[in-house]
This record gives sequence, structure tokens and C-alpha cells, in this order.
Amino acid sequence: MIILHGFAASNYYNLVKHLLLHKQLPFQENLLYGGSDQLLAISPVGKVPAITTPEGLNLSESSVICDFIEETYPSLTFPPLYPEDSSQRAVVRQIMKIAELYFELPSRRLIGYAFTGKAVPEVVAAEVRQVLTRGITALNRLCQFSPWVAGEHFTMADIYLYYVNQVAIKFVASQLDWDLFAEVPGMKAWHETMSQSEIAQRVEADRQLNMPDFMQKLNVQFQAAKANK
Amino acid sequence: MIILHGFAASNYYNLVKHLLLHKQLPFQENLLYGGSDQLLAISPVGKVPAITTPEGLNLSESSVICDFIEETYPSLTFPPLYPEDSSQRAVVRQIMKIAELYFELPSRRLIGYAFTGKAVPEVVAAEVRQVLTRGITALNRLCQFSPWVAGEHFTMADIYLYYVNQVAIKFVASQLDWDLFAEVPGMKAWHETMSQSEIAQRVEADRQLNMPDFMQKLNVQFQAAKANK
Repeated sequence: MIILHGFAASNYYNLVKHLLLHKQLPFQENLLYGGSDQLLAISPVGKVPAITTPEGLNLSESSVICDFIEETYPSLTFPPLYPEDSSQRAVVRQIMKIAELYFELPSRRLIGYAFTGKAVPEVVAAEVRQVLTRGITALNRLCQFSPWVAGEHFTMADIYLYYVNQVAIKFVASQLDWDLFAEVPGMKAWHETMSQSEIAQRVEADRQLNMPDFMQKLNVQFQAAKANK
Repeated sequence: MIILHGFAASNYYNLVKHLLLHKQLPFQENLLYGGSDQLLAISPVGKVPAITTPEGLNLSESSVICDFIEETYPSLTFPPLYPEDSSQRAVVRQIMKIAELYFELPSRRLIGYAFTGKAVPEVVAAEVRQVLTRGITALNRLCQFSPWVAGEHFTMADIYLYYVNQVAIKFVASQLDWDLFAEVPGMKAWHETMSQSEIAQRVEADRQLNMPDFMQKLNVQFQAAKANK
């Protein structure tokens, strides 16, 4: 059975969890937080999520895990999450990559400031805004939202962008006072449809259950970092 | 025929060019610099490289282009650049992703400072060092260099890491006075082997030919940015 390592407050953990539930693959959750020695033994950059395959191989990086799961367990009951045609598949992957590099990664740099209450330094805010602006232009050109991100069929890009947005929308709004939904027409309505699925609701319920524990862990780390200064 | 858009001073342009030459695919080079309107019409984030497929589809993001080329043109004369086994393929992709996110992306943030001669702000240097440190740990655990990055067979990870290193090694040395080769045993000897291939030497010769034109374009952009301040 696949073991999913990480914690439910993580958007990328939830991305992989959503994929496993969507594909109706049996899996076991193993609660590990970032920075723990147990996680470092599994994930070489110490990041959540990681999986251990039934053969005992440890894998990290969400996009690598998504590719692995889809390629190792081709869907029998669902249409494939990567289109059969290599051009259409490339478009799906391009959306995922741009969502990750131009929406998620820059927004992630704001999280530490949100939790500590420190102001985002202008040099960081300027870099983040610049990257996000490129992401907005690109997603407007590539995403269809008719009804799904890449058009008629539900693909890996729907799962990916939905969980990227869990971080991007929230922290860009709170730290840069900027509504990313307003910048990409169609994205908000699609996001709401996604959030109403049974799987997304189950993932969200687990996320809320994990939040108090996660916040406590974060607080311990924050106090330790302060003490080390 | 595939059209490769970009310029030869770009390491990611050269990554895709090396791949096309390795696979002996016919392609045409179209000289475009970042930020140009012609490039923006092809690449939605305005980044080099982009390709136009023989069917007229524009694609950007190096990893997406690599996947597309390997999946659309399976090798007839070479072993595949992604292993047949999905677990081994995932390991190759994990190395590529970690090289990109933890070596190339943080190092890229130093380039602007190198060209303008401005000191790297400490907040940026600290972020870059932290990300690189995770990359070093991960690459040490994942890379084999025996003789190739992922072991016995030459894979996409060899081409990817080689061109990631073109930026990472150089700018981390010049801006942070830090030798990344020394941090990953085996990487320097492997890198030298890679650099001696006929293809790498052809790519490097084209890079050197493009450098004066590229530096002039950069200087124009730099002067324009200064004038706008």
C-alpha cells in the first residue's frame, strides 16, 4: 500500500491525497511535520509530501509523485488525468508548472511573514509581485475553465491548480492585499465547483482537524528560532 | 520541423538544444530575447526557451518541453532518456525537479546582481543559501555519478543537471563565494565528462558566439531600467 507522509494542513500534501482519493487507490497516512528527522530520512529536501511506494521506494516533489501515481496506476474506471495525446498532455503539464513556479512558489515566500506578523520587506514583495504578474498573464492564456482548467476533461491540472490556489489566493490577499481570483476570469467559479466535490470536502475537513496541532508545532519552531537569535 | 525560440546564452535554451541534438531531431533556431513581444506571443511567461511543434503548438517550460520531446519522439537509435520502469523514471524526474528548484532557481536570483555589480542584499543571500543547502543534501542522496547521474544509464537528468549547473556553479561562486562542486562529491568529474561530448561542445561554441549580442541587449535593458527610475 502507498504511504503518504506529511500533514493535512499542507496544501501539497492535500494535492497528493486528493489524487489518491480520486483514483480510489488504497493508502495510509503517516503524520510527519517538516523539519523532522523522520521526514528527512524519507524526503531528501525535508519537504512534505513524500510517499513510500508499495515496493519501498521513497519519492518527494508533488509533480514527481503525481506523474508516478498516474503512470504506475493507469485509471481503469476514470479517464486518464494526463491526456493520451502528447501535445494535449504538454499543455496540462505547462499549466501545472506555471501554477507551481509563478503562483505557488512566490506566494509561499509570504507565509513566514503571515505567521510571524513581520512586514514583508519591499525587496521580497517586489520580487513576489513580479513573478505573480507573469503567472497571471500565463494562466489567463492557458486555462480554459470550460468547465475544467484544460477544457472539456478533468485533468491533473485541475487538482494541481486547486491546491496551489489554497496558498496563493490566501497569502497574496493577506500580505499583499491583492485578489488573484479577480485577475484570472473564470478561476473563482471553477475553484468553487472544485471545492464542492466530495473528495475536496473530505480533504478540507481533515485539514481543519490538523490545524490546531500544526499551529502548535509552528509556534514551538518560532519560539526556538527566536531563542536562537 | 520543431522551432526552438530563444538565445544561445541561455542555459535552459541550451538544455533543450542539447536534447534535440542528442535525439538527432531536425530543428530550426529562432533568435528571440526575453521580454520581446515576439517571445511573449509564443511563451506565456515571456521566458526562453519555447518551442513551436511541427503542428504549430507553442510550448514553454524546459521540463514540459523535455517531456514532450521524449514522449512524442521515442528514441529509435538510443535508449530512452526516461527509464521504462515508472519507479526509476520517478527517481530521474525527482533529480531534475530538485536541480531546478533547489539549485537553478535560487542561483538565478543572483544573476541580476552579478550583471549590475550591486551587492546581493542579505535577506536575498540568506534565502538563496538556505534553499541551496537543501538542494545539496538532496542531490548528494539522489545522484550516483556512476558514471551517470542516475546510475548506469544516461538519462534526461544528465542533460538537465548539466545545464542547471551552468548557472548555479557560476553565480553562486561569484556572488556568494561558494563552490557547489565541492559540496556534491562526484559532480565535478561527471560535469567535465559531460562538457567533453561533441554536442556539449557545439552548444558551448554557439553560446560563446551569442554572448556579445546578449550582453549588448542586457546593457540596453539595464540602461532603460535606470532611466525609468
